[in-house]
Amino acid sequence: MHNDLNSFLLSTPEMTRIFSPHEQLRAMMRFEWALTAALEKHALAEPGSATIVESLVDANFVDLDALQREARDAGNIAIPFVRQLTAAAAARDERATRAIHLGATSQDVLDSALVLQMRDAVELIDGDTARLEAALENQVRAHRDTILAGRTWLQAGPPTTLGLKLAGTLAALRRCRDRIRSASQRALVLQFGGAVGTLAVLGSVGGAVSAELARLLDLREPDLPWHTQRDCIVEMVQVLATLTGSLAKFARDIALLMQSEVGEVSEGTSSERGGSSTMPHKHNPVACAAVIAAHAKMPGLVAAMLRAMLQEHERGLGLWQAEWDTVPEAFQLCAAAAAYSIEIAEGLKVDAARMKANFDALLGMTMSEAVTAALAPQIGRAPAHDLLRKAVARAADEKRHLGDILKQSPDITAHLSGGDIERLMDPRAYLGSAQQFIDRVLGDADANR
Amino acid sequence: MHNDLNSFLLSTPEMTRIFSPHEQLRAMMRFEWALTAALEKHALAEPGSATIVESLVDANFVDLDALQREARDAGNIAIPFVRQLTAAAAARDERATRAIHLGATSQDVLDSALVLQMRDAVELIDGDTARLEAALENQVRAHRDTILAGRTWLQAGPPTTLGLKLAGTLAALRRCRDRIRSASQRALVLQFGGAVGTLAVLGSVGGAVSAELARLLDLREPDLPWHTQRDCIVEMVQVLATLTGSLAKFARDIALLMQSEVGEVSEGTSSERGGSSTMPHKHNPVACAAVIAAHAKMPGLVAAMLRAMLQEHERGLGLWQAEWDTVPEAFQLCAAAAAYSIEIAEGLKVDAARMKANFDALLGMTMSEAVTAALAPQIGRAPAHDLLRKAVARAADEKRHLGDILKQSPDITAHLSGGDIERLMDPRAYLGSAQQFIDRVLGDADANR
Amino acid sequence: MHNDLNSFLLSTPEMTRIFSPHEQLRAMMRFEWALTAALEKHALAEPGSATIVESLVDANFVDLDALQREARDAGNIAIPFVRQLTAAAAARDERATRAIHLGATSQDVLDSALVLQMRDAVELIDGDTARLEAALENQVRAHRDTILAGRTWLQAGPPTTLGLKLAGTLAALRRCRDRIRSASQRALVLQFGGAVGTLAVLGSVGGAVSAELARLLDLREPDLPWHTQRDCIVEMVQVLATLTGSLAKFARDIALLMQSEVGEVSEGTSSERGGSSTMPHKHNPVACAAVIAAHAKMPGLVAAMLRAMLQEHERGLGLWQAEWDTVPEAFQLCAAAAAYSIEIAEGLKVDAARMKANFDALLGMTMSEAVTAALAPQIGRAPAHDLLRKAVARAADEKRHLGDILKQSPDITAHLSGGDIERLMDPRAYLGSAQQFIDRVLGDADANR
Amino acid sequence: MHNDLNSFLLSTPEMTRIFSPHEQLRAMMRFEWALTAALEKHALAEPGSATIVESLVDANFVDLDALQREARDAGNIAIPFVRQLTAAAAARDERATRAIHLGATSQDVLDSALVLQMRDAVELIDGDTARLEAALENQVRAHRDTILAGRTWLQAGPPTTLGLKLAGTLAALRRCRDRIRSASQRALVLQFGGAVGTLAVLGSVGGAVSAELARLLDLREPDLPWHTQRDCIVEMVQVLATLTGSLAKFARDIALLMQSEVGEVSEGTSSERGGSSTMPHKHNPVACAAVIAAHAKMPGLVAAMLRAMLQEHERGLGLWQAEWDTVPEAFQLCAAAAAYSIEIAEGLKVDAARMKANFDALLGMTMSEAVTAALAPQIGRAPAHDLLRKAVARAADEKRHLGDILKQSPDITAHLSGGDIERLMDPRAYLGSAQQFIDRVLGDADANR
Repeated sequence: MHNDLNSFLLSTPEMTRIFSPHEQLRAMMRFEWALTAALEKHALAEPGSATIVESLVDANFVDLDALQREARDAGNIAIPFVRQLTAAAAARDERATRAIHLGATSQDVLDSALVLQMRDAVELIDGDTARLEAALENQVRAHRDTILAGRTWLQAGPPTTLGLKLAGTLAALRRCRDRIRSASQRALVLQFGGAVGTLAVLGSVGGAVSAELARLLDLREPDLPWHTQRDCIVEMVQVLATLTGSLAKFARDIALLMQSEVGEVSEGTSSERGGSSTMPHKHNPVACAAVIAAHAKMPGLVAAMLRAMLQEHERGLGLWQAEWDTVPEAFQLCAAAAAYSIEIAEGLKVDAARMKANFDALLGMTMSEAVTAALAPQIGRAPAHDLLRKAVARAADEKRHLGDILKQSPDITAHLSGGDIERLMDPRAYLGSAQQFIDRVLGDADANR
Repeated sequence: MHNDLNSFLLSTPEMTRIFSPHEQLRAMMRFEWALTAALEKHALAEPGSATIVESLVDANFVDLDALQREARDAGNIAIPFVRQLTAAAAARDERATRAIHLGATSQDVLDSALVLQMRDAVELIDGDTARLEAALENQVRAHRDTILAGRTWLQAGPPTTLGLKLAGTLAALRRCRDRIRSASQRALVLQFGGAVGTLAVLGSVGGAVSAELARLLDLREPDLPWHTQRDCIVEMVQVLATLTGSLAKFARDIALLMQSEVGEVSEGTSSERGGSSTMPHKHNPVACAAVIAAHAKMPGLVAAMLRAMLQEHERGLGLWQAEWDTVPEAFQLCAAAAAYSIEIAEGLKVDAARMKANFDALLGMTMSEAVTAALAPQIGRAPAHDLLRKAVARAADEKRHLGDILKQSPDITAHLSGGDIERLMDPRAYLGSAQQFIDRVLGDADANR
Repeated sequence: MHNDLNSFLLSTPEMTRIFSPHEQLRAMMRFEWALTAALEKHALAEPGSATIVESLVDANFVDLDALQREARDAGNIAIPFVRQLTAAAAARDERATRAIHLGATSQDVLDSALVLQMRDAVELIDGDTARLEAALENQVRAHRDTILAGRTWLQAGPPTTLGLKLAGTLAALRRCRDRIRSASQRALVLQFGGAVGTLAVLGSVGGAVSAELARLLDLREPDLPWHTQRDCIVEMVQVLATLTGSLAKFARDIALLMQSEVGEVSEGTSSERGGSSTMPHKHNPVACAAVIAAHAKMPGLVAAMLRAMLQEHERGLGLWQAEWDTVPEAFQLCAAAAAYSIEIAEGLKVDAARMKANFDALLGMTMSEAVTAALAPQIGRAPAHDLLRKAVARAADEKRHLGDILKQSPDITAHLSGGDIERLMDPRAYLGSAQQFIDRVLGDADANR
Repeated sequence: MHNDLNSFLLSTPEMTRIFSPHEQLRAMMRFEWALTAALEKHALAEPGSATIVESLVDANFVDLDALQREARDAGNIAIPFVRQLTAAAAARDERATRAIHLGATSQDVLDSALVLQMRDAVELIDGDTARLEAALENQVRAHRDTILAGRTWLQAGPPTTLGLKLAGTLAALRRCRDRIRSASQRALVLQFGGAVGTLAVLGSVGGAVSAELARLLDLREPDLPWHTQRDCIVEMVQVLATLTGSLAKFARDIALLMQSEVGEVSEGTSSERGGSSTMPHKHNPVACAAVIAAHAKMPGLVAAMLRAMLQEHERGLGLWQAEWDTVPEAFQLCAAAAAYSIEIAEGLKVDAARMKANFDALLGMTMSEAVTAALAPQIGRAPAHDLLRKAVARAADEKRHLGDILKQSPDITAHLSGGDIERLMDPRAYLGSAQQFIDRVLGDADANR
C-alpha cells in the first residue's frame, strides 16, 4: 500500500477503492452473510439469521480503533471483527449470532474476502488492458510504415518502423492478458476449511455447506481448501508483475525517444503535464516515469510472495501475514501502470519528420549492413565487412554521407553502380519483413502467412 | 550457475548437462545449421553448405579460451563463435561460409539456442514432476486415514490426516505442471529477426526462411521476433520458482515433522544419508534442506528476470546479459528441488504410532473445539468457549486429560453425558470432510461430489 | 506503506506518525522555511519573508485533493505544494513569496524532508533497540546456565544454554546498532542542488546559502549534492533489513521452542494474546509471527532500493519515485519488528523443567558426541564413532537410555567405567566454553579472556 | 557462480580463481592445518600431526567425484572432505589422523574457509576500487570545466560540467570503500564452535584452542561463534551490491551519453571493442553493459542473503546452504563491474565539441531558468515564468534561438538589455557552485569552504 501523498503515482482511485479498508470489511461481511445463509439452509443457523447478517453487510458497525487494538493480540483482524459482528447482530436478535462464523476460521474469511476483492480488481485490470490493446492497435496500424532508426545497445542501426516497435508491446500485452485470465481461473476460488482445513465442526455436512457458500458468492469451489498452498495467489502477483514489466519496457522506449536530443515522440497529454517549477522549457515524461516506478517495485513484491509460500503445516506463522498488503499493492501498481500506459498510447504524439531527420543525420551509416549484404555474395562477407568498416570510418571522419563515400570508392563501384548505392541507402527499401510482421499481429493480412 | 563443489545440492547431473557450455554451443550450432539449410533451400546459400555446417554440429571446433577473450570485446560469445565456425567451415569449403549466420544477429542464435535447451529442460522437469505426482498419489492414498494433529501457528489443533496434508501438495503440484505447460507453449518459439528485428538482409524472403528455420528446429514460429519482449522467458522462470515454492512448503512440513521432539516421519533414504561427522545419533533431513535451499534462491532469480524486462529499443544494454545465467540456474535449482522431493515422497517413513502418541500427549486439549461446537447450540458459543477455556487451563495445570476434567465438571455434564464426551474426544470422529477432500483430489469418489 | 487495517502488524503508531502525510508536509515546510531564512540572511529574500513562511510551517494550508490532482501532471507533490505555499504566503504578504523555493528544485525539498523524517525515525529505532538490548542482556544473564538441547538441522544435539542462544542475538543486535549509527552519519545530510545540482540560480552565494540552510536544519552539509547518488539511502534500508533479519532469527527460534511438542518457552504477554476464535486451548506466538512477517517483506524493499540506484544523469525517470514509499515502509516494518521483539524479550516465559524433560526424553543420545570424544583418544575416532552409532541405534530400538546401553556394552566398558559414563551423560558437564562466551558478550568476566 | 561461457562478463579471472573449487578446498585445508596445530600446541594432537596435515594443504588428495557423491548424503562437502583428508593423512602416519577436525563441525571449516576466501576477495576489490578512484579523480580534474547539458527526466536542463557529474560517482565510490572496510572488520573473523557452538568436545581448553587457531589464520576471534548469526555475511554482500549500484549508475550515464544521437563520450577501448557482426558502423558500450548486467543480478543475491538469515537454532536447515554460491557470485559480479568500470574511467573519450554543439542545438532553451531568475526580482517569479514559457514555445515553433526571441520581446527588453540577455545565454556564466563542489571533492580548494 502507498502513502496517501503518493497515491497519484502508485495507484488509481478505482483500485485504491477496491482495496480500501472499508471494501475489505465489506468483502468479509459478504463471506459471513453467505456462510450464515448456507448454514441456515442446512438448519445449522436459526431461521432469519442470514437476513440479520445481511442487514449488516455494509460493515458500518465496525469500530476500527478497537479492531486494531484487539488485532494486536489476536494476530489478525478477523477475530475482533467477528466479535464486533456478533455484538452488532445480537443487538438485533441474539439468536442470529449463534451460527455466525460457525465452521469457519479467520483465514477462511480473510482469504475468501481477498478473492472477492481480487475478482473486482481483475475485472478493472481487464477493462484497462482492453482499452490499452485497442489504443496500441490503432498506433501500430497508423505507424505501420513510419520509419525510424532501429537501435541496439542504444546505438542506431538499420531502420525499422514505429509500428513494428509498438507491435512488440501489443503482442506482449495480449500474452499478459491471457496469463491474467489463466491465473484468475485458478485463483478466484472459495477458501473454506475451518480450523485445520477439515471442516470438522460441520461434521458430515461440510461439503454441502461449502458448495452452497461458493454458490452464494459465485465462486468456484476447489477440490480441497488451499489456505496453506499459496501458489495461485503467487501466480496472480506474478502475472501482474509481468504485465507491468511489459508496460515499463514500452514506457522506457517512449521516454528514450522523448529525450531532448532525440525528440521523436512525446506524451501528448494536458498542457500542465510535465512542466517544471523552475525550468519553463521542460516537458517531462511523467506518465513514463510512473510506469517505470511501478515496475521497479514489482520484483520485490513477487519475491515476498514466493518467499511466503513456506507456510507451516495447516497455517503459517508470519508468512501469510506478509501477503496481506503485498497483493493489494501489486494490483494498485499494475493499475497505475496500465492507466498511465493508456495515456501514453492514446495521446502519443509522433514527429515523423524528426525521425527522418535523425536518421538522415546518421549520414547513411546505419545502412552499412545493407551494403555489406549486397557486396557479400560478390566478394565474400568478411572482405565486404572490412570495406564498409573503412568507408564508415571515413564518412564519420569527414562528416560526409556514406553514400557519397561509397560512390567515390573504386573498391565499391567495381561492384555497385551509383543507382545501386542510392537504392541501398534508402531505408524504405530495407524494412525486410517489418510490415509483414505487423500485419500478422494485427490480423490484417492472413494471406501473407 | 553453481560452483562445481555445490552441484550435488543445487542441480542434478542431467540438468547440469543440458545447460553445460558444450550443450549451449551445440544448440547454437543446431541453429546455425538449420539457418544455413533454410537459406540453401531458398538459394541464398551455396548448395552443400548445410551439409558442411551439419558436420560441425558437435561444436568441437570451438576454442573456448579464444571465445572468452574475444567475447570480452564483442559483448557476447556469438560473434567470436560465428567467427570460429566460419573458419572451421572454410577449412572444408570456403563457399560454405558465405551464408553462415546470414540474416541473423547474435541474439537470434543465443535466444534460439536457449529455447532449444529449455525444451530439453522442460521435458526433464515434466518427467520428474510426473514421477513425483505418482509418488504423492500413493502416499495420499496410503495415508488417507492416518491421523495426526493439525497444526496452526506451529501449535497443535484439531486432527487432520497425513493424506489431506499431502493432498494439498499434490493439488499444487498439478497446478504447477499446468503452468509449466502453458508457459512452454508461449516460450518455446523461434527467435529470428536480424539486426533490429526486421529480417532486412533477407529482403522479401525473410518470412519464408524463418518458416523453414522453425520447421527444421521443430519450433513454433511467432507472429514477430520477440527479442526485446522477454515476458515468456520471465514466465518460465516464474513457474519454475512457483513449483519450487510448492515443493519447499512440502519439504518444510516434512522437516518439521522430523524434529527430534516430533518424530512423526523421516526421510527414508540410504543409511548414509544425514549422518553427522561428530554426532553419531543424527539423522538430518538432507533432502528437505536441499529443497529449501533451492527455494531460497528463487525469488532473487525471478526478481532479476523481471528487472531485466526493460530492454531498450531493439536490443538491451546489459539487461539481456543479466538473463544468461539466470535462466539455467532456475532450471537447475528446480530440477534439484524436484529430485530431492521425489526421494522424500517415495521414501517417506511414517510413524503412525508416534503421531497417535503425540496427539494423546496433548491430553485431549486439541479436541476443545469439538466440545465447544457440541455445547454451543445448547448454551451459546461464547459461554461454551469460556467453559472450555477454563477446562483446558485446568487440564494443563493438573496435567490431566481434558476428557476427565470435563466429566467432572457439572457445567459440562449438565449438557453432555460421559459417552458424549468420549465420542467428542475421539479424533477419528472429528475429521469432517478430510477424506471427502482427499477422494476428490484422487478422483476416487466422484459420487461424493 | 500499509493498509490501515494491518497497521497493528506492520508498523507502530509512533513510526506511522513520523511518516504520515502530515509529517511529510511539515518536514517539507521546515525545509522551505529554512531556505527562505537562509536567502533572507543573504539578502535574496525580502526582510520578514522567513517569519511569514515560518507561520505556515504546520502545513495546514495544504489542500490534499488539489495536491494529488496536480501531482499527477507534475510528477511529484513538491510542485503543487510550492504553488499552494506561495498562495498561502501571498495572502499574508505578497513580497514574502518572491524567494519561496528560490534556488531549490523539487527533489531538494523532498529529499531533505525525507532526511528530516529519517532523523526522527532513526532516533525511534535507536531507543527501541536500546531497550531490546537491555532486555536481552537480562535474559542472557538470567539463563546463563539454563540447559536445553542444542539443535542443528532441527535435530537435537549436545546441550547448550538458553543464555548462549540469546547471546548470539544480543551480539548481532549490537552490530546492527553500530551499522545504523554509521549509516545515519552518512545519510542524514542536507540535499540542496537546484535544477541540476549546481545551485546556478544562486550564482556565487550558493555555497553560503547551502551552509546556512544546513545550519538551520541542523544537518551536515555534504561536499556536493547527492540527489542522483542514492547509496546512502540504500544503505539505510539495508541496515534496517539486516536488523529485522536478526530479530526474525530470534523470533523464529522462539516460535520453534513454543511448538506444542516442545513447549520450552512462551511469549509471556497479555492473557488475550494469541487466543483462537475457535480453539480455546490455543496460545499463538503472535509477536513472533509479526517479526517474521516484517522480515519477509524486507528483501523486496532492499531489492527495489538497489534497483533504483540507476537514476539517470541529474534526475532519474521513475526510479527516484520508486523509493518514495519504500523507505518509510522499511522503517515501519523495522519498528514493528523491534516493538514485538521487545515484548518477546521482556516477557519471555521459560520452562526450564520442560527443557530438562525434553532433553531427558532423548535418552541420552545427544550425549553420544561426548562419549565418542572420550573414547577416541583410546581407540581412534572412527572406531569410537562406529561403536556409538551402534549403541545409539540400540538405544532407539529398545527405547532405553544410552547410558544403560553403554554400561552393558563390553566394548565400551573396556575403556570407560560406569562413573565415567554417568559423567559423560551429564549435560552440565558438557557445556564447553558456553558460559565463557556468554561472559565475554556480557563483559562480565574480562579475566576469562 | 556463472556458466564458464559467460565468465568474461560476470567475473574476472582473478576473482574466479579465488572462489574456484580448488581454492575453496585449499582454504578448508588451511583451517584444518591450523586447527591441528592449535590442538597439537595444547597436547590434543600427537606431536607432528600438524606437519603432516600441512603437507596436504594443497588439497590435491581430494577426489572430487567421490566428494560430490558423498556430499549428497552428508548434506555438505565438509564431511566427505574430512574423511578423504583423514585417509590421506593416515597414509603418512595414522597417529596424525586422531585429532583431525577434532572439536570442529562442518560449518566451522566451511564458514572459516569462506572468511579466508573473502579476505583475499576484499583485498582484490580494494585494489580495483583504489585504481578506479584514481582514474575518476583524474577525469574529474580534467573535466572540471567541460560544459554539457544537465539532464533531468532525460530532458536537457541548465548546464553542468562533466567533472561535477563524475564527482558524484567519485564521492559515492569513496563511501562504498568505507563501507567495505567496515563490513570487512566485522565479517573477517574466525568461526569455531563445534557441534552446537559450545566447543564442548574441547572441554576447558576450547577458548585457548580457539585463540591459537585465530592467531594461526591471522583472523580476529569473535566473542562467541557466529554460525547462525549471518548479519556480517549479509552486510558484506550488501556493500558489494551497493558499490555495484554506484558503478552501474555511472555506466548507465556513460551509455546514455554514448547514444548515437548524443555522442558526447565513448568507451575508448580497443579497436575490437563493441563491433557488431553485421553492422560495420557500430561501437557498442560493451563495458557499460557488463556493469549494468552485474548490477541487475545483485538485488536478487541480497534478497537471498537476507532471507537466509532465519537459520534455525544452532544450525539452519537449507538456508545456510542457500548462501554457499551466493557470496562468491556477489564478489565475482562486483569484481567484473569494477574491472569494466576501470576500463571506462581510464579510457573515456570525451567529445567536448559535441557537448557544446548539443547544447547549442537546444537553441538556448535550457537557459530559460537563468532568465527567469533574472526577471523574477523585477516582475515576480510567476509572471517571469509565464513570459519565459511563451518565449520558449515561440523559439521551439520558429526554431530560432531563445536569445533572439527574447531580444525582440518588448516584455523582456523592458527589463533586460541585449547584453544582459547575451550574458544570461552563456552557459559558462551559469554553473553556480559546480566547480566549488568539485574542488571540495578533490580536496583541491580547502579555502573555498
